[in-house]
Amino acid sequence: MKVIRDPVHGYIELDQLVLSLIDTPQMQRLRRIQQLGLSNLVYPGANHTRFEHSLGVMHLATTLTSQLNSIEKDEKDEIRAAALLHDVGHGPLSHVTESIIKQYTRQRHEDVKPILKKGEIAEILDEHGLDPVTIADHIKGETSLGKIVNSEIDVDRMDYLVRDAHYTGVAFGLVDHARLIHEMQFYEDNLVVGLGGLKAAESLLVSRFLMHPSVYYHHVSRIAETMFTRAVQDLINKKTLDPFKLRQMEDARLFEMIRADDGYAGELGKRLDERRLYKRALHVGIDVVGENVLRYRGKVDRVENEIAEMVGIDSSEILIDIPKRPEIAEMKALIKVDGKMLRLDEASNIVATIENAHQDNWRMGVYTIKEHRETVRKAAQEFFDTKKGTKQFRLTDL
Amino acid sequence: MKVIRDPVHGYIELDQLVLSLIDTPQMQRLRRIQQLGLSNLVYPGANHTRFEHSLGVMHLATTLTSQLNSIEKDEKDEIRAAALLHDVGHGPLSHVTESIIKQYTRQRHEDVKPILKKGEIAEILDEHGLDPVTIADHIKGETSLGKIVNSEIDVDRMDYLVRDAHYTGVAFGLVDHARLIHEMQFYEDNLVVGLGGLKAAESLLVSRFLMHPSVYYHHVSRIAETMFTRAVQDLINKKTLDPFKLRQMEDARLFEMIRADDGYAGELGKRLDERRLYKRALHVGIDVVGENVLRYRGKVDRVENEIAEMVGIDSSEILIDIPKRPEIAEMKALIKVDGKMLRLDEASNIVATIENAHQDNWRMGVYTIKEHRETVRKAAQEFFDTKKGTKQFRLTDL
Amino acid sequence: MKVIRDPVHGYIELDQLVLSLIDTPQMQRLRRIQQLGLSNLVYPGANHTRFEHSLGVMHLATTLTSQLNSIEKDEKDEIRAAALLHDVGHGPLSHVTESIIKQYTRQRHEDVKPILKKGEIAEILDEHGLDPVTIADHIKGETSLGKIVNSEIDVDRMDYLVRDAHYTGVAFGLVDHARLIHEMQFYEDNLVVGLGGLKAAESLLVSRFLMHPSVYYHHVSRIAETMFTRAVQDLINKKTLDPFKLRQMEDARLFEMIRADDGYAGELGKRLDERRLYKRALHVGIDVVGENVLRYRGKVDRVENEIAEMVGIDSSEILIDIPKRPEIAEMKALIKVDGKMLRLDEASNIVATIENAHQDNWRMGVYTIKEHRETVRKAAQEFFDTKKGTKQFRLTDL
Amino acid sequence: MKVIRDPVHGYIELDQLVLSLIDTPQMQRLRRIQQLGLSNLVYPGANHTRFEHSLGVMHLATTLTSQLNSIEKDEKDEIRAAALLHDVGHGPLSHVTESIIKQYTRQRHEDVKPILKKGEIAEILDEHGLDPVTIADHIKGETSLGKIVNSEIDVDRMDYLVRDAHYTGVAFGLVDHARLIHEMQFYEDNLVVGLGGLKAAESLLVSRFLMHPSVYYHHVSRIAETMFTRAVQDLINKKTLDPFKLRQMEDARLFEMIRADDGYAGELGKRLDERRLYKRALHVGIDVVGENVLRYRGKVDRVENEIAEMVGIDSSEILIDIPKRPEIAEMKALIKVDGKMLRLDEASNIVATIENAHQDNWRMGVYTIKEHRETVRKAAQEFFDTKKGTKQFRLTDL
Repeated sequence: MKVIRDPVHGYIELDQLVLSLIDTPQMQRLRRIQQLGLSNLVYPGANHTRFEHSLGVMHLATTLTSQLNSIEKDEKDEIRAAALLHDVGHGPLSHVTESIIKQYTRQRHEDVKPILKKGEIAEILDEHGLDPVTIADHIKGETSLGKIVNSEIDVDRMDYLVRDAHYTGVAFGLVDHARLIHEMQFYEDNLVVGLGGLKAAESLLVSRFLMHPSVYYHHVSRIAETMFTRAVQDLINKKTLDPFKLRQMEDARLFEMIRADDGYAGELGKRLDERRLYKRALHVGIDVVGENVLRYRGKVDRVENEIAEMVGIDSSEILIDIPKRPEIAEMKALIKVDGKMLRLDEASNIVATIENAHQDNWRMGVYTIKEHRETVRKAAQEFFDTKKGTKQFRLTDL
Repeated sequence: MKVIRDPVHGYIELDQLVLSLIDTPQMQRLRRIQQLGLSNLVYPGANHTRFEHSLGVMHLATTLTSQLNSIEKDEKDEIRAAALLHDVGHGPLSHVTESIIKQYTRQRHEDVKPILKKGEIAEILDEHGLDPVTIADHIKGETSLGKIVNSEIDVDRMDYLVRDAHYTGVAFGLVDHARLIHEMQFYEDNLVVGLGGLKAAESLLVSRFLMHPSVYYHHVSRIAETMFTRAVQDLINKKTLDPFKLRQMEDARLFEMIRADDGYAGELGKRLDERRLYKRALHVGIDVVGENVLRYRGKVDRVENEIAEMVGIDSSEILIDIPKRPEIAEMKALIKVDGKMLRLDEASNIVATIENAHQDNWRMGVYTIKEHRETVRKAAQEFFDTKKGTKQFRLTDL
Repeated sequence: MKVIRDPVHGYIELDQLVLSLIDTPQMQRLRRIQQLGLSNLVYPGANHTRFEHSLGVMHLATTLTSQLNSIEKDEKDEIRAAALLHDVGHGPLSHVTESIIKQYTRQRHEDVKPILKKGEIAEILDEHGLDPVTIADHIKGETSLGKIVNSEIDVDRMDYLVRDAHYTGVAFGLVDHARLIHEMQFYEDNLVVGLGGLKAAESLLVSRFLMHPSVYYHHVSRIAETMFTRAVQDLINKKTLDPFKLRQMEDARLFEMIRADDGYAGELGKRLDERRLYKRALHVGIDVVGENVLRYRGKVDRVENEIAEMVGIDSSEILIDIPKRPEIAEMKALIKVDGKMLRLDEASNIVATIENAHQDNWRMGVYTIKEHRETVRKAAQEFFDTKKGTKQFRLTDL
Repeated sequence: MKVIRDPVHGYIELDQLVLSLIDTPQMQRLRRIQQLGLSNLVYPGANHTRFEHSLGVMHLATTLTSQLNSIEKDEKDEIRAAALLHDVGHGPLSHVTESIIKQYTRQRHEDVKPILKKGEIAEILDEHGLDPVTIADHIKGETSLGKIVNSEIDVDRMDYLVRDAHYTGVAFGLVDHARLIHEMQFYEDNLVVGLGGLKAAESLLVSRFLMHPSVYYHHVSRIAETMFTRAVQDLINKKTLDPFKLRQMEDARLFEMIRADDGYAGELGKRLDERRLYKRALHVGIDVVGENVLRYRGKVDRVENEIAEMVGIDSSEILIDIPKRPEIAEMKALIKVDGKMLRLDEASNIVATIENAHQDNWRMGVYTIKEHRETVRKAAQEFFDTKKGTKQFRLTDL
């Protein structure tokens, strides 16, 4: 049994199974994938990686399963392997490249069956009597046990909320995961939280609610990440980059390809390196632009073209970012009260309250280079006003 | 006045001078230089960068100068600029490439005059009425004021000891820098610590003493860093890499060049990527190998050749690492007692004690690939025994 | 300038004014007044005192005033003195004895004019050219400057929220007071928070919202504190204790008087010492008992008598606790946006949301000794049902 | 299984055995015994109690025994009970009253057999099949298993070093107890630390070495505690206080008795309440006063008389404090290396080094009231010089 030092959990114990899996190239690669994409442009301390996060998730899964008497030894190993391997499907900069990878390969980061079924990982799992397909199913949360690593209230989010708070330095690291894990159990094939864990489950929600605007959707990271994905798209369009290889790449390699480009991608890369980012021309909530704006998701290039034409600039100088409506999956977590299972938002008034407030965290952004900020804002306002049929944009929405 | 969140110091305030300097490519480059080289192979959390460290040093310099009434406003700006810019001369992976850069260019990382005198940095300094040459002198610690950023007890080491502890997660982050800074003043052109800061100055020593073997000279990072420098040397020998360009490069670019190589460098790079490191064949203290061994510093290739010949393997499969004798510069810091200045090791028994104990932290290493571990150890033992004239190597020294 | 170590703020600097005030018997007495009353029965670590809290408040006031250029040096001293002295009016166990003291003396803990106007404190203030009456007005928040120590968003609550979290060990210590203070200023005689401090102001709200049910209104402390106040009341009724002397007493003295009693008070004291507390017979929210229940505040003895009669036990074996409706004063704090002042709950959706959710934190309690728990619950349910006219009490409300 | 929140260890689990023992008056009494005596006069946050410390020790003992497969379930319960109960023999203000209690009753705080053998504790132990005498032996460290709670490297000191650091706020809380416990095992009836725990064991030493002068032997607490014990002695001499009842008392009761006195004790009590402490007239190390001074331990009243006579004041105005030579028991802890057991100071150069340096932490003190400081210093210097035969006292020794 070896141990490794972790700033979040103290010591993490590594047994032979874990040690072998860690030493595979697939796991070592995660050392070179930043956990929070380009958030380090906002929080200089946020340079942590998927590797340490994976160790943390494995650690919490071990803690949780060790208290569940109903689970067999080999099932515990399955879950620990699933926890450790759950992020091997991530591309460069984690979630930043996820939508591009999905667009071309139809695979999300949780789809790891092809990765687990071959090479060293498959061999190691086999040596320990573990089945790659079962583990891949756990990782997708498609089994009962898999809910430990992938569900509304899994150990994945317990680790990343606390870890992201530690490295960004924000003061919201208030997830009481020790208590939460202590209260978790299986009940009728569901992973449920006992009543004694209600406050701790609420703390998970509150933490996400506060981290969302401050960290996960901070407009500066959104701008940088939008710029980055456009650069990647440009390389793919030019056939410089094979989108099917993207998923095995690392942050540095992809960045080097972008820097090596002498066109649009290269220019965006240089801007990112020197932190000369696009600026907000418009950054507004759903109350301003109306629900209809969500229809443009996936078609922002057309909107960019139209606004660019209105202003008379090149459409590459406008970036539009329309995120999904925010949701807090945790509110569907199950709480066991008096032998009955309630959804967290049924059991807790706080949670139901936050559910509504969280919608106000949504923002759509129109970004452009500094020089065109004023003209693009006016054009964008006009465009969205027309679409919405009202005239309620305010200057303070910037 | 903008603020930025820092996990170590809380908020750091950035005024216009600092904001402008931060936005130069030279400072932005530090975002992509790891503070602790390859220590993240031992401590997965140690991914912090020279950029955030530079902000931290600037923050502490600001705190210190703000309490010194004898210093003028423009001198304060000089020192703050010096603190912020003190690491722009670092090459990839910080200290890891330092000796190679010095070997070819004769420049150490503190030699930043050429960098400050041209381009955007020079312009910004000029706009604020600051002289690049003076600032470069401060950074080298060659002025009285410069001792704030470069001396036996400067704000540089106050920041990095605490910061390195935060990210590695070791429990030794015990530098009481708030107290230390509170007690610092200039006295007869020397930066001195008042008697009330004696305990805090001792804490700096103790911290370094404990961090040295656990973090800074951990054998696994030493092995990885030795492998890395050999790979860089190989690229230079093959003319693939121009050593004069090394200093402006970033971690990722240099790693990519190593990976792209199809010879020795590439092989070492692949080993580093997959964490298949060389292992310790011998790892012993000065009491075992004798003082004479220090004569081999700078000539380890000859020793490697000789031992390789004894074993009958290629000399590239042996790496020898002979560090400098450890020294704790802090013990020369000046303490002001009853109007007299004493050296810290004169004023404090603890410090004098640690000075001796610290010598025991020195280790030399002979590293090789797993398969040759036994044979290389025997040969290396024989080699160093002969040189030393005794037979006292023990198996437990491994 | 001396410094003192504080677990929450690191070092706190003490100048001559503060040192002199600290050395008065009135301030030294606060060393022996627990900050959180009897919360240490729930959180064994919660033994901190009003003394260290007062130092913390003074520290934050110093930080805040030092950045406000519009305030004169002597006004800064006034505020610092006010911050340090703001709690000298607290009786034993802080808020626990507050309502009894108010009932007999008409004085709340903020009414400190009589204390400041005489003895050593008056002398020291006079020596430093400070007026006790002005300082007493600041402490009551009745001046513009006084808002720093007593208003919707004062340094008092910034200190105690973080301090209480540190000592109880709950994970909710998320007040970003460094940022908040950095953004505070006076505007048209109001203490306002700049837009950059909005998130930090929200964090204050969220912290209170989470601390309320977990710490400040935890049912076990409420039970213990209700028992304690009944014991004090019993001593007063028996003329053993002069209520006008209560305010100058310390925790230990009052406890010793209770222990020395051989009647009801003594029995309650023994129960508290041995932690044999009354138990919840009913512990329900406003949705269950209806708004009308608030009319019984101040007349709970009648309700206790009635229920005791229904059950056929002595009314001393029933304790009823009907707290005030919870309010979050902070939501009235002023935020300065584009030159206009908005209330925090107008500027922030989160705050408006929490305002509603916070009402659900209210609970009324009917407590009794273990043996009568079931019978008292039934009687109390019947009593309150009749009063409310409905039958919706559930067993799970216990 | 209930849990309780602890600021140091997070959550502590309490099973039925522990819950029952906690609810005894003997354990509840520890809520009212300060862990660090009068250190809160130096560190205002140091108000923690023996109660929370006892829970912490029980928690660490549970963690340690749970990984030792060689120990039976009932032995684990024995050790957990011993850990929880190990401090029930402490008198008011913990170690402050220890020597007086020992002088009259011949009992040290570890002698708890009489307390465990009667009343509720005996009943509860009996119910759980545990023998009070065995547990008392464990607490004295007289059994093999007992070394877990009382030996050179026991869980008692692991808890208090970290806990005392947390509440005083000093930065030296560097005991890596998680790692240390992970490496502990029984070997030939000895509790030993595996080689992997060497660094962690060293950290325990370093922590104590740093805590000793800053916290445990800070001259201000020593002065206050010397004053307090003289007051207690005065009450005993006057027959106001029965020394045989002292051990069952609590801090507050004893303080109230002192305050109620109208002679010397009462005067000292008033000084303590108002923090008008005696001052250092002489505070010097063994290098100054010579080893002979240790002979006066236990006879300081004679020395006080003699010096008082020299000065011409009442001997009650002089207090002399001659502590034992400091020792670091931890250095005798056993480290298991290659199947052999070494003492920690044999296995670690750092430890051997600290052993020597630690002697310099010793100080003897001559204290008096402010007015007599100069004259008492001169007389005390003369007295000790004569006894030592040299003239080397320096003014700076003050």
